[in-house]
Amino acid sequence: MDLFEAIKKRHSYRGNFKNIPIPREDLEKIVEAGIRAPSGCNEQAVEFVIVDDREKLKAIHKIIDYGFLETAQAMIICVLDHRPVFRDISFCIEDCAASTENILLAVTALGYASVWIDGHIRVDGRAKEIARLLSVPDDKEVRVILPLGIPEEPGTQNAKKPFSERAFFNVYKSTNA
Amino acid sequence: MDLFEAIKKRHSYRGNFKNIPIPREDLEKIVEAGIRAPSGCNEQAVEFVIVDDREKLKAIHKIIDYGFLETAQAMIICVLDHRPVFRDISFCIEDCAASTENILLAVTALGYASVWIDGHIRVDGRAKEIARLLSVPDDKEVRVILPLGIPEEPGTQNAKKPFSERAFFNVYKSTNA
Repeated sequence: MDLFEAIKKRHSYRGNFKNIPIPREDLEKIVEAGIRAPSGCNEQAVEFVIVDDREKLKAIHKIIDYGFLETAQAMIICVLDHRPVFRDISFCIEDCAASTENILLAVTALGYASVWIDGHIRVDGRAKEIARLLSVPDDKEVRVILPLGIPEEPGTQNAKKPFSERAFFNVYKSTNA
Repeated sequence: MDLFEAIKKRHSYRGNFKNIPIPREDLEKIVEAGIRAPSGCNEQAVEFVIVDDREKLKAIHKIIDYGFLETAQAMIICVLDHRPVFRDISFCIEDCAASTENILLAVTALGYASVWIDGHIRVDGRAKEIARLLSVPDDKEVRVILPLGIPEEPGTQNAKKPFSERAFFNVYKSTNA
């Protein structure tokens, strides 16, 4: 799929997924896109656990408790290493978001759908529970979860503010955009 | 350009750029890709200042003091709004990174090159100096700068660790990847 088409078609999907497993070849291609994202000082501070085991999927669904997750055929879990890589700065959050965006675009191009689950797992100890379930050590953080599958319904990208409200030439909030 | 080709070809370019201005049409297409990135609660907490004015480019080059910036034909500056959008959480850093990755892919697809400048402007007050230059108000943060142009030399993506070192099926650091 053309890059700009994938960028336009990517959307946050919270519907049900078809009961069709995702071939590991596709899961690998999707995560490989995440691996190729830029990372601060090329330290590659993000790792990925790809869950396609039915029992583990059920257990994660139980922890997150979003109805639509019940039909997810796989999930990609991003695992972060917060150690600094430049002065006292870690870029792992940026790395994770860039990888996540590559993954979401790859998901779109291959005919699947997903949604970026993030804030919800930071509360009530959900991320830690998921970390324990997947044997992620205490010094790493489970940060983002991406459920995957073939969508049962079509979806569209959330409306975005127009260019003129978010982008400006040469001076912030200038009107010559 | 095909999505997966753009993901593979994207690289951090720190060489000189050709002395050929970038049409505003291309700059708009590139930033529109950034606008279409996902954002936490769709709050779209990132704005963009696109600098193509020669005097302003020179002034930013002087602040950042990276040699290769002297030949940049334009720069995209990401401006963040740190106000919380979900409980006490702001997702603006994630939003910015996802937008930045879309921008870098669009840059690649259109035959330009760039590099994600981030940590370097967080020190010695550089980001604040750039904010003042562009009239960005004090309650917003200049976070990422992306210089742009047609590259004088070819470039390749930094080597990435293999899939088996960064991705695992169902159990962290399992060897069945």
